[in-house]
Amino acid sequence: MNQTFTVQGMTCGHCERAVTSAIKQLDPQAEVRIDRPQNLVEVNSDQPRDKLAEAIREEGYAVTSS
Amino acid sequence: MNQTFTVQGMTCGHCERAVTSAIKQLDPQAEVRIDRPQNLVEVNSDQPRDKLAEAIREEGYAVTSS
Repeated sequence: MNQTFTVQGMTCGHCERAVTSAIKQLDPQAEVRIDRPQNLVEVNSDQPRDKLAEAIREEGYAVTSS
Repeated sequence: MNQTFTVQGMTCGHCERAVTSAIKQLDPQAEVRIDRPQNLVEVNSDQPRDKLAEAIREEGYAVTSS
């Protein structure tokens, strides 16, 4: 199931990797695609939306639309 | 020996950690202090200046004064 989040504060490739691995820790099968200039994180996962958003927030990023 | 570098491109805490660990890989005894808003990396190390600059560059950052 494709789910898109708007995420503020990702400034570099390290941030992309931090967000990606937080999601994959929650769901190792998840596919993650990040469009940093657009602040978008696209996740293909069957995990609930609020759990995915929480995993991103715990890395220190603001999820402004979810 | 205190050595100060001006480093461009450090955007977040992950970047600070990447620069710090690159330096500590070269010299585990090094003390590293980073002033990100000022783009400054202060290193207390007896390693030669060019080796320290190279370690920072290899992490993908531009050393503009060294």
